[in-house]
Amino acid sequence: MKATVYNGNQSFTVIEKEIDTPKSGEVRIKVAYSGVCGTDVHIYHGMMDKRVSIPQTIGHEMSGVIDEVGPDVEGFTEGEKVVVRPLDDRLVKPSDKGFNHICENLKFIGIDSPGSMQQYWNVPAFVLHKLRPETDLKLAALIEPLSVAVHDVRMSGLVAGETSVVLGGGPIGLLVAMVAKEAGANVIISEVNETRIQMAGEFGLKAVNPTKIDLVQYVREQTEGRLADVVFEVAGVQPALDVMTELAGIRGRIVMVAIHGQKKPVDLFKFFWKELKLIGARVYEKEDYEKAIALITANELPFEKMITDVQPLSNIQQVFENIDKNPEGLKVLMDCQL
Amino acid sequence: MKATVYNGNQSFTVIEKEIDTPKSGEVRIKVAYSGVCGTDVHIYHGMMDKRVSIPQTIGHEMSGVIDEVGPDVEGFTEGEKVVVRPLDDRLVKPSDKGFNHICENLKFIGIDSPGSMQQYWNVPAFVLHKLRPETDLKLAALIEPLSVAVHDVRMSGLVAGETSVVLGGGPIGLLVAMVAKEAGANVIISEVNETRIQMAGEFGLKAVNPTKIDLVQYVREQTEGRLADVVFEVAGVQPALDVMTELAGIRGRIVMVAIHGQKKPVDLFKFFWKELKLIGARVYEKEDYEKAIALITANELPFEKMITDVQPLSNIQQVFENIDKNPEGLKVLMDCQL
Repeated sequence: MKATVYNGNQSFTVIEKEIDTPKSGEVRIKVAYSGVCGTDVHIYHGMMDKRVSIPQTIGHEMSGVIDEVGPDVEGFTEGEKVVVRPLDDRLVKPSDKGFNHICENLKFIGIDSPGSMQQYWNVPAFVLHKLRPETDLKLAALIEPLSVAVHDVRMSGLVAGETSVVLGGGPIGLLVAMVAKEAGANVIISEVNETRIQMAGEFGLKAVNPTKIDLVQYVREQTEGRLADVVFEVAGVQPALDVMTELAGIRGRIVMVAIHGQKKPVDLFKFFWKELKLIGARVYEKEDYEKAIALITANELPFEKMITDVQPLSNIQQVFENIDKNPEGLKVLMDCQL
Repeated sequence: MKATVYNGNQSFTVIEKEIDTPKSGEVRIKVAYSGVCGTDVHIYHGMMDKRVSIPQTIGHEMSGVIDEVGPDVEGFTEGEKVVVRPLDDRLVKPSDKGFNHICENLKFIGIDSPGSMQQYWNVPAFVLHKLRPETDLKLAALIEPLSVAVHDVRMSGLVAGETSVVLGGGPIGLLVAMVAKEAGANVIISEVNETRIQMAGEFGLKAVNPTKIDLVQYVREQTEGRLADVVFEVAGVQPALDVMTELAGIRGRIVMVAIHGQKKPVDLFKFFWKELKLIGARVYEKEDYEKAIALITANELPFEKMITDVQPLSNIQQVFENIDKNPEGLKVLMDCQL
């Protein structure tokens, strides 16, 4: 079988290797598609070399079909379509208080252990979610990032009729906006890149450029002065942090989706004054996966437009090089069947 | 009657003036005690001269007895003991979403309009809460700051058995600690002043000095690795902001009680990683006042020890000068009957 390997130093190779037999508790998946996540790009850039055991196969946004069921696994059959929720929580402790998805010793499959950018992939059975036979496996590769968005929206407590501002119109921002809109919210995306603003429009989403309009004033007008009920900070830049506390109205909630590697100035007075909430949200829980699977199965949101490129495994080096050159692309899938 | 007046420039005077007749919708209170709040000290230091209409009588932590009921007021009788919830929300708008206590055009009585540091005080009847005839009016002057603490604890969602760390052992920090302990939490106060640490001990509260022990390690040991479920940031200093995100365990809540006048560096990554919540909490709602009144009426917590000095109105200048000289004092009351 073909497998891709990250070798460090912005370099991938494609190798031929034996297909492994699944161990006790494992299944082998014939991988269909494996999406490229921002985290994979970080790995490619060498930002996570301390965490990744080089050489390693990466990837975790995937879809596939059960190829072989290992010993001591029940409830799964060859040929079933599945996705992997790539959280290995086997080292969970009582001090994690039952929040297994963010437990202190969580291993993220595809970062801390081998990932899905290969033709066959062995994983513990407890990470599997089944799909319906009719589910499109290309769209199903979006279930993992969509689950992030579903989790973010669920953590926000968003209800129909509320106004939500999404700061950042990249893949996760767009998915958050879609899920929030599907939940009945009035959604405004703030994005500085005009191409992405146009894309958002094609998705049926409202996007504005905060360098061209007064975003706070715009949201105030759209809400008769209430301002945003929920702000999703997905941009990860200081201007987003500066505006998030202005955009949120009284008792507004701000969901911290972006990863800020350093301490950043935050207007804590606004949290006090308007009784704002800042809500950290990371990965997803089982129910988020089930909701994301239902959304993908229903296929009523513009998921297909999210997939801007599909490439065979053999092109992996070029795929990552192109992502750097084309920051406007949304989701690139590796077709692991080729 | 005697009234105190803040004249700006760290100066108070005591004047003789006519007792006013209450207008429509108002009652006249014979003020018993009026506590000195940190905000009053800020006013004395000239920090709020833009907001206070100098010369002005300030003060809002009070207790008293209804002296005269004005026209169009129902449900109150001369001689009833009362406290004032000093929030004038008459300019509330639909965009305040029903959160009247923090409405955009809120007027804080005693800052934005005349306060309680005088013998007789006319207020709109809607700010009154009745006390029982047997309630101690000295303790009742603590109801306003106690309501702040009750609100902070309610906003945190604290439940019995949880561990709470209170950063800062001043008057509000101690009250928050008392209320959290009364709610069944395991409470640890972090305070750098040894005299205050000792006072906390006399109140039956556990207080530690974070400059002498490793606070995070201490809390980890006390909780079998769970760390704090709730952190109250009452200190208002950068080291508190730095440690709050370390102290909070998975899905921990951090309540922002302190007022940070400038943007401050915050570890947003920890919010993401541990799915922390930051909860802004300001003043109080009706139910917080009712709970605080019940606590003062029951008088089972060490409220009396909170009152470290009682002085006649005529000593107001000296009282404020002494507070600056003696930062270890807790609550000073003006006795408005003298």
